[in-house]
Amino acid sequence: MSIIFYVNGLLLAGLGVTMLVPALIDVVIGNEDWSIFAVSALVTWSLGTLIALAARRPVESALRMQTAFIVTTSVWISLSAFSALPFLGLGLNYHDAFFEAVSGFTTTGSTVLSDLELLPPGLLFWRALLQWIGGVGIVVTAIIVLPFLRVGGMQLFHTESSDRSEKIVPRPVQLVQFIGLTYISLTAACAALYKIGGMSFFDAICHAMTTLSTGGFANYDASFGHFEPPLLHWTATIFMLAGALPFVAYIKLVKGEQVSLWRDPQIRTFLQLIVVVSILLALWLVRTHDLPPLEALRLAAFNVVSITTTTGYASSDYTLWGAAAVGLFFLLTFIGGCSGSTTGAIKIYRFQILWRVLRAHLGRLARPNRLIPLRYSGQRIPEDVPPSVLLFLTTYFASVVVVTLLLAATGLDIVSALSGAATALGNVGPGLGEIIGPSGNFQEVPDSAKWILAFAMLLGRLELFTMLLLLDPEFWRR
Amino acid sequence: MSIIFYVNGLLLAGLGVTMLVPALIDVVIGNEDWSIFAVSALVTWSLGTLIALAARRPVESALRMQTAFIVTTSVWISLSAFSALPFLGLGLNYHDAFFEAVSGFTTTGSTVLSDLELLPPGLLFWRALLQWIGGVGIVVTAIIVLPFLRVGGMQLFHTESSDRSEKIVPRPVQLVQFIGLTYISLTAACAALYKIGGMSFFDAICHAMTTLSTGGFANYDASFGHFEPPLLHWTATIFMLAGALPFVAYIKLVKGEQVSLWRDPQIRTFLQLIVVVSILLALWLVRTHDLPPLEALRLAAFNVVSITTTTGYASSDYTLWGAAAVGLFFLLTFIGGCSGSTTGAIKIYRFQILWRVLRAHLGRLARPNRLIPLRYSGQRIPEDVPPSVLLFLTTYFASVVVVTLLLAATGLDIVSALSGAATALGNVGPGLGEIIGPSGNFQEVPDSAKWILAFAMLLGRLELFTMLLLLDPEFWRR
Repeated sequence: MSIIFYVNGLLLAGLGVTMLVPALIDVVIGNEDWSIFAVSALVTWSLGTLIALAARRPVESALRMQTAFIVTTSVWISLSAFSALPFLGLGLNYHDAFFEAVSGFTTTGSTVLSDLELLPPGLLFWRALLQWIGGVGIVVTAIIVLPFLRVGGMQLFHTESSDRSEKIVPRPVQLVQFIGLTYISLTAACAALYKIGGMSFFDAICHAMTTLSTGGFANYDASFGHFEPPLLHWTATIFMLAGALPFVAYIKLVKGEQVSLWRDPQIRTFLQLIVVVSILLALWLVRTHDLPPLEALRLAAFNVVSITTTTGYASSDYTLWGAAAVGLFFLLTFIGGCSGSTTGAIKIYRFQILWRVLRAHLGRLARPNRLIPLRYSGQRIPEDVPPSVLLFLTTYFASVVVVTLLLAATGLDIVSALSGAATALGNVGPGLGEIIGPSGNFQEVPDSAKWILAFAMLLGRLELFTMLLLLDPEFWRR
Repeated sequence: MSIIFYVNGLLLAGLGVTMLVPALIDVVIGNEDWSIFAVSALVTWSLGTLIALAARRPVESALRMQTAFIVTTSVWISLSAFSALPFLGLGLNYHDAFFEAVSGFTTTGSTVLSDLELLPPGLLFWRALLQWIGGVGIVVTAIIVLPFLRVGGMQLFHTESSDRSEKIVPRPVQLVQFIGLTYISLTAACAALYKIGGMSFFDAICHAMTTLSTGGFANYDASFGHFEPPLLHWTATIFMLAGALPFVAYIKLVKGEQVSLWRDPQIRTFLQLIVVVSILLALWLVRTHDLPPLEALRLAAFNVVSITTTTGYASSDYTLWGAAAVGLFFLLTFIGGCSGSTTGAIKIYRFQILWRVLRAHLGRLARPNRLIPLRYSGQRIPEDVPPSVLLFLTTYFASVVVVTLLLAATGLDIVSALSGAATALGNVGPGLGEIIGPSGNFQEVPDSAKWILAFAMLLGRLELFTMLLLLDPEFWRR
């Protein structure tokens, strides 16, 4: 068990060091809040170092399965818990601070803060940094850890990266380095374009970080709607999409294999979906709201991409676009992007597997003797993938229902409860209704609901089973 | 293919004869609307007889799987379509008439009619009769046809009634006779108690028919809330539960095997759920609404049973009981009763299979080498049942989402669209919100939404796949 404490201690120490960045920013700008970050950094770093030293470097050579699950879940919880410290320094109570930290780390982007314009820059940077770290954290978790844990059909990509003849990169360390480099480059490119488009240097950096991580924290109460230039909206749209693609695919791009990128069924279906839905919504906006076509397309594409990629920026209150639009955006809350990206929610490949299973099942109902092999991306789908995916989908919807019920029990109306559950589990950000809708805020939600929502965000971020497993008494036996 | 027309023709002719019952009632009472039923009867009977004669008795000895699916689905659609004729005679347009007929046949119980008190008795009887026939129709379909079609995990009960050493009854014909007799006896008992409790003879018969069929059509706008005596409410509660139990189980009861009835995991879990939820809700009502405990229990039990058994009677507007109650009733819309009963929705055994699969999956995630055999009711669960059940659940939730989106596109607000989708697919009856809530009515819903809802009712009634299959182009190939 010492490895659990060792890893947590090590990462907490790292988090402590990271807190010095916002401290530095406040010092440079001359804001006195730097001390909050300095104290938080000291507490987190020293506690983390202490734990790591006490646990010592573990000697176990092979990681036991159970231990791997505990490490994964506990890391996300402990990092969130300590990331909340600077928010406490700002005067938030721990309910709000933990909610904001979890919402950051899981790249959800729901916020309890308002009057963001008046917040110290260090804190705004801290929120963006949390999402940026959380974003690359989940990519690494999804590519390295989850396929190994075989959670929710992720073994599909385990097979892909390990058993295939064409090994993409030889070793995990190299893979992580490549992902990190890609992530940094894309963020830098996004920030540069934001600066060119008219943002301040500070805003450009912060928003680039929350764009690539598909997180959605903004520095303004009006979210991305604060920025007027259409160029900025299109830049955001492009880079939210960039964050929603499988990061492993960028390797192929670098190697000059653009064709194979387009052949990836996940990427193709995802981009087709985005284009078709955006155009349909734009046509609807032109017809019902008399908008000029280009503006309608910009609004539609931005908001469709924002919700589907689980970013959660809002450029305008789409709940005023009519019942059909509200229904559409509620549906999009469930979709998500590609596997191995920074996006949350169900993700495209699970719908593709479901579709193949459903068609095969219907085929077998009518002709019981026919055997239809399931294929994905030119490969036979491993036998344990379809049941894993189906169980994931069922559990996902069941979780939405249970979280809705719990939220309703705290007194939230049914629209807020349901959309809150969906947006938290999908790590999206905004819900529906007056309280938590795109122009609302999670401040008014009861404290108990904030804890339920934070739990749902972690549950969704860890693909349900990684965390649900720890709630099973059977897991802890022996 | 001739068998398809033969069966449809035969059943339509039967439906035509059935229409003479309400005609007779109107004649006896002296209402001039009897002619509407006489004309409808003539049209339906003669068309049905014509079709049956034209198709002639089929010579095919073995029913092909595909044909069985077409027969099952087409029967439910054609009977609904012709049952709508008397409503047309009343002056309804075909949108409304078809909606009302489907809502009757599928034992959903949503209505587009208001001022029910002023309707001719023949028509009120016709609505009740539709539900009563639909109720026994689905029991027979569920026990005889669906296990054979292996739809949504129903093969679990195929195995139960055919492969087991203890064969309950030797032949399907005998089984159907027994079910019919049980159904009639229970309805008569319910009607007698209703009469004793204070209903008129006519009301007692009509409401007994819509109680046992868990249909929920009432003769009054206030639904069951029109009746004040607590005895009537408790009688309804008991007989709605009776309609929600597996009808095959009554054989055991008749044989004096009460113990084995209680040992049936479906029945036990179902009744436990009802008792626990009713008591919790009653306590909540006592605390928040200052109701006397017995009245609170009566209200809670009646409405919990009404929604869970997918009957859909309302004894009071539970949407006024607070957000938590609304969330609870929305959740109950998905549950349903036992397999082989008149209830709709997901049904208890699927949740039980899901729970077993989930636990086994979590167990295998942590300890990949351990094999846990799944058991249900003391038997090994057949290998193809868990994937069928998981696919059913996923498809069910996906259908709710798709129907919600379609309803929202017709202009319904999100609460009406979502609860409408859930209540139609579950064959429950009332939704949430001002329009279609327990004190509302489906009259105000757009015509396009009525067709979507009617389609959803049939989809849910036929356990999704029986009908979805026919939408698959692959099915019609060759």
